[in-house]
Amino acid sequence: MSCPFLSSAQQEKTAIGEAHAKVTYPGQLQLASLLNSQNLLTYQPGNTPVHDEHLFIVTHQAFELWFKQIIFELNSIREIFDKKLVEDSALPVACERLDRITKIFNVLIAQFEVISTMAPQEFGELRPSLGDSSGYQSCQYRLLEVKLGVRDDLRIKYADQSYQDSFEGTELESLKTSQKESSLFDAIDQWLARTPGLEVDGFNFIGKFKDALERMIEDGEDKKTEELNTGYTTQETPSPLRERFDSVFNETKHKELVHKGSRRFSYKAFQGALMIFHYRHEPQFHYPHLLLTSLIDIDQKMAQWRHYHANMVQKMIGNLAGTGGSSGYMYLRSLCSDRYKVFLDLANLSSYYIPMKYMPQL
Amino acid sequence: MSCPFLSSAQQEKTAIGEAHAKVTYPGQLQLASLLNSQNLLTYQPGNTPVHDEHLFIVTHQAFELWFKQIIFELNSIREIFDKKLVEDSALPVACERLDRITKIFNVLIAQFEVISTMAPQEFGELRPSLGDSSGYQSCQYRLLEVKLGVRDDLRIKYADQSYQDSFEGTELESLKTSQKESSLFDAIDQWLARTPGLEVDGFNFIGKFKDALERMIEDGEDKKTEELNTGYTTQETPSPLRERFDSVFNETKHKELVHKGSRRFSYKAFQGALMIFHYRHEPQFHYPHLLLTSLIDIDQKMAQWRHYHANMVQKMIGNLAGTGGSSGYMYLRSLCSDRYKVFLDLANLSSYYIPMKYMPQL
Amino acid sequence: MSCPFLSSAQQEKTAIGEAHAKVTYPGQLQLASLLNSQNLLTYQPGNTPVHDEHLFIVTHQAFELWFKQIIFELNSIREIFDKKLVEDSALPVACERLDRITKIFNVLIAQFEVISTMAPQEFGELRPSLGDSSGYQSCQYRLLEVKLGVRDDLRIKYADQSYQDSFEGTELESLKTSQKESSLFDAIDQWLARTPGLEVDGFNFIGKFKDALERMIEDGEDKKTEELNTGYTTQETPSPLRERFDSVFNETKHKELVHKGSRRFSYKAFQGALMIFHYRHEPQFHYPHLLLTSLIDIDQKMAQWRHYHANMVQKMIGNLAGTGGSSGYMYLRSLCSDRYKVFLDLANLSSYYIPMKYMPQL
Amino acid sequence: MSCPFLSSAQQEKTAIGEAHAKVTYPGQLQLASLLNSQNLLTYQPGNTPVHDEHLFIVTHQAFELWFKQIIFELNSIREIFDKKLVEDSALPVACERLDRITKIFNVLIAQFEVISTMAPQEFGELRPSLGDSSGYQSCQYRLLEVKLGVRDDLRIKYADQSYQDSFEGTELESLKTSQKESSLFDAIDQWLARTPGLEVDGFNFIGKFKDALERMIEDGEDKKTEELNTGYTTQETPSPLRERFDSVFNETKHKELVHKGSRRFSYKAFQGALMIFHYRHEPQFHYPHLLLTSLIDIDQKMAQWRHYHANMVQKMIGNLAGTGGSSGYMYLRSLCSDRYKVFLDLANLSSYYIPMKYMPQL
Repeated sequence: MSCPFLSSAQQEKTAIGEAHAKVTYPGQLQLASLLNSQNLLTYQPGNTPVHDEHLFIVTHQAFELWFKQIIFELNSIREIFDKKLVEDSALPVACERLDRITKIFNVLIAQFEVISTMAPQEFGELRPSLGDSSGYQSCQYRLLEVKLGVRDDLRIKYADQSYQDSFEGTELESLKTSQKESSLFDAIDQWLARTPGLEVDGFNFIGKFKDALERMIEDGEDKKTEELNTGYTTQETPSPLRERFDSVFNETKHKELVHKGSRRFSYKAFQGALMIFHYRHEPQFHYPHLLLTSLIDIDQKMAQWRHYHANMVQKMIGNLAGTGGSSGYMYLRSLCSDRYKVFLDLANLSSYYIPMKYMPQL
Repeated sequence: MSCPFLSSAQQEKTAIGEAHAKVTYPGQLQLASLLNSQNLLTYQPGNTPVHDEHLFIVTHQAFELWFKQIIFELNSIREIFDKKLVEDSALPVACERLDRITKIFNVLIAQFEVISTMAPQEFGELRPSLGDSSGYQSCQYRLLEVKLGVRDDLRIKYADQSYQDSFEGTELESLKTSQKESSLFDAIDQWLARTPGLEVDGFNFIGKFKDALERMIEDGEDKKTEELNTGYTTQETPSPLRERFDSVFNETKHKELVHKGSRRFSYKAFQGALMIFHYRHEPQFHYPHLLLTSLIDIDQKMAQWRHYHANMVQKMIGNLAGTGGSSGYMYLRSLCSDRYKVFLDLANLSSYYIPMKYMPQL
Repeated sequence: MSCPFLSSAQQEKTAIGEAHAKVTYPGQLQLASLLNSQNLLTYQPGNTPVHDEHLFIVTHQAFELWFKQIIFELNSIREIFDKKLVEDSALPVACERLDRITKIFNVLIAQFEVISTMAPQEFGELRPSLGDSSGYQSCQYRLLEVKLGVRDDLRIKYADQSYQDSFEGTELESLKTSQKESSLFDAIDQWLARTPGLEVDGFNFIGKFKDALERMIEDGEDKKTEELNTGYTTQETPSPLRERFDSVFNETKHKELVHKGSRRFSYKAFQGALMIFHYRHEPQFHYPHLLLTSLIDIDQKMAQWRHYHANMVQKMIGNLAGTGGSSGYMYLRSLCSDRYKVFLDLANLSSYYIPMKYMPQL
Repeated sequence: MSCPFLSSAQQEKTAIGEAHAKVTYPGQLQLASLLNSQNLLTYQPGNTPVHDEHLFIVTHQAFELWFKQIIFELNSIREIFDKKLVEDSALPVACERLDRITKIFNVLIAQFEVISTMAPQEFGELRPSLGDSSGYQSCQYRLLEVKLGVRDDLRIKYADQSYQDSFEGTELESLKTSQKESSLFDAIDQWLARTPGLEVDGFNFIGKFKDALERMIEDGEDKKTEELNTGYTTQETPSPLRERFDSVFNETKHKELVHKGSRRFSYKAFQGALMIFHYRHEPQFHYPHLLLTSLIDIDQKMAQWRHYHANMVQKMIGNLAGTGGSSGYMYLRSLCSDRYKVFLDLANLSSYYIPMKYMPQL
């Protein structure tokens, strides 16, 4: 197998072959270069060194190392789903790797607890040395978003600029390449659209689902639902349940929501997700359901990561703009929006849950 | 010392005296009652029991137990500061207890990771049994907010109702009592306003601070600052630094910000915080500065708690409204706003940091 | 379904029926009793109250609440496996609940970070009031161990006493009942022993596994293995690999290890685990393998919990004995031993991993 | 200030000066080299690549980055205390940095949760490629231990080898240099020995402490103590309290304990710690006490780190020896011993706590 993730430098090296070299811990980890990469700007002749700069650099480097790992995992998961036929045994592997990404985000969140021990005053002394340098320029973070499937038109712009404007050369190229490739979202969308049972001339899930809704309404759930959700009953809406499920049965309505960005999947994929969600106890849907849950988890962890990020920045610079004319606290907090939740539809499936007593056997 | 926190029932009990009773682990912890308080609604004749209801109840009970502990600590910290003279040895105690509250919030956040293992489908089955019951009705959570100092006019209303409308009887009374008392915010505000060094006829901190700003501007920092914050230099603003610090020197401007809710402390208290922030290395300000940091930490942890809460609810009910006509995801997410950060001014101090080379010796 | 977990008091209550009562948040959570269960020993006439006693009680109560939840989950998982035929769709449910228990232990570990904020001096002032009360007397913790499957003969005794000597009445009875029931370990052992593929006259896993080992030895792995494990090669042992795997093929050797306590499963169950471990990528073994991993996780989390416990106690009382003549630090640390790892065999499976290139297709 | 921590390569670079170079995010973080340092052994022609090798490398690199940060902080803290006169304003700085190290260990523990997602089978496939490479060869980890003050004679040897035997060249040299320098332990020991109030012809703490013990015994505490610690009272020991405190008053006894390794500080330093421990509410001891607590925290976090490490290794290789003939699980678990707790005496202070009612005013 050739590894598309390896840099060309590495590919050459491995081509030459160094199989016989003795493997050592510092050699394998390339510690000589890794531990010599902390170039402190304020530890220069003429500057009063800022103690916390070392922490600042190491934390960011640790972030970048882990971003690389996340991208490595994302690539491998995209590869699993970006096929006409996804093998059964691939799903557990995909779930394990998504779960790993979630746990990496726990590390990244713990890293914010460390960088937050930096006194804002120390950062105030360090900040002028940072010049134009800004986290905004992390190419890997952008790759991560693109490969996951953050929708370009839903991004919140800063000063009317595209995030791409911060990059050039090979970085810009890698971003553009990623945008052309299938994102994890795209691959999952296509896979969901093929969920067995959706066929109108077969099990016809959506038809059965509509029947189930009608049974539920007949059962008087309309009134109970309204009370549960609003605290009181009115006569105004003929059927709050029918209204709620409208976008599930009406493709035009669905597409409107997609256009607005409050729904993401294609109509068929959304149905697939809804079917898996309801029939999760069926053996064939065990792993698909675990997968959907893992995807929600990643979205939520990333949202939490963004929230910690915004808070950390608020502590360091208050309501000022960030370095390099970028991302201050207010901007960063705006990113905690659902616009950046790639698999938002999956979290919202619970809004369309119909109790199993109304659903037919599969 | 009489303990104002004990319920009257407990006070009586202790008055009667049971000093001679043998202390046992289950007795001291009142396990008989504690472990018999999980009354499952769906484990009733006629209902199909929902396995996850037990988790639902235990998690909420654990939240409430910890809320009680936080309130206990908050009361003791308010007592420390709600005095004309705060003893030196009281500050370390206050910091320890604030730090404890922060660590309790770590537990509460970890609890969201547990409750999030509930399948939304299970919650969908459980939800109808919950009736009007809603987390909105947690009196202790409201007490916690009030005692901390959440400003009533900054709360985000739901359906134009006050949060108080959910309470009656002794619960409502305890809320009203708390609102009349000094909150932690009030007590800290008064303490900060007395910071030694603020006296205009003494060290005159604010005067010295203004001189420092002028030295900074003379030094050409204006141009650098603008570049740092905007990424480019313009000639338009005569002095971005002077503009930024305007509300620090102009009491009217300060009050306008307080009125809008984007600043909170009284003018004098804000100056005190600014002084401690800059002179944190002076021995008399070691603990005051640690205290300010601890207060920021609590605000940020609570914001994270709210964010986890909103995400958990999104996973459980998508974009539906909550039970009891309350707090769905969109509402809960709106609470992650700075409006609920009681000590927002402290996080924003970093916007007004003047490098120490411009500041005079204390 | 009747719920064997509900106390008889609750069963009666539900029998009477209170379906029509309005469900409220404080009512459902029984807050009136829950929040009135903090009876502080040092807040009595004549005593100088110890501030941290409130924390001490609340933390222990939170531990007990969560223990109840863990026992609830354990009971339901034991029920799943304590059958001749375990349905396919039961495995994902079991995995979810085991994963939940692991996450509860994360909460419990976070709780140690809170209780550790208690100053040892505060505990020194509180300690005399605690009398004979000791965590040693937590019946639920013992139930948890017994239901999980901690082997009685492997327990480390304190002062030659059985842990049962701390209990009487209904508590003792519940412990004795639990000991007679199948533990989770027992149920899993029986389930593993039935792993399809073990039949000697069928796929004959153990026979195939032996062949694979021989292929591995022929391939020269013996020498490499020895080098890897010892750092040097000798001629002394004829085949280190054959020696290592001896207890896998020799039932008498296996039973000796079980007798010593360094192995736990029955011979057949051990084979089942080994088979699942190697063929985890086969669809029928996806969930069984996930289950084995979850069981290792619980053992390891509990070991970490014990380790945090020991450290917390060391900080509070140094090297003194505990209250009630029990469990000081040295004793608690001795419990971090593998003797308390119920599913030790699963962690040790990796010692018997044979690379898949030597293993035949299933 | 010259920075002894910078590599000579960096020193040169800074000497030449590159002040005018534009600072960019990838430039400052040296991402080109950092993100090109993942050289995968199994991604070579002829090898079947092992997916999890990337995780294996990135995790270890992240460990090493953070070790560098911990060493950076440790050096700065040692510098603070390795002086005849420690300035008051240096203590808060030291506490902040120790607290930061504790939080870094939280990150490192979270990293174990990530690396533990590696399937042992994957590691089984990877292991042969690792050759002699072993975590045993992490020079930075050894530096960290040495600089903290792990006592050489208390180390647990593996195969009768010194840990130094794994190193050569500049790595060995840096270890030897560190061993000659004052460790943090040494510096703290000297600082504690100078605690004001220890002077026999002054406040004479140890004399006063002995009087307090006598008052305690007169008060009948002997009997209560025995009961508390053993659960029953005997007549055998004349005074359990006097016996317990023997090593505090008897320097010979103290030195015996130091010789055995169950006590570490010099006699004078131990007294200083005991004094700070009791008089922590006195303003001059606020920060010294906070410092002692922070030192206990680091010891405990490191112990937890070691415990997670051992458990992770157990999951990966069971009871086999490690790569490079090193550190398998049994060995790693043995390191969780108190022998590696550098500030063990501080955790044990609580064994010698005398309630404040017996202690005289300072």
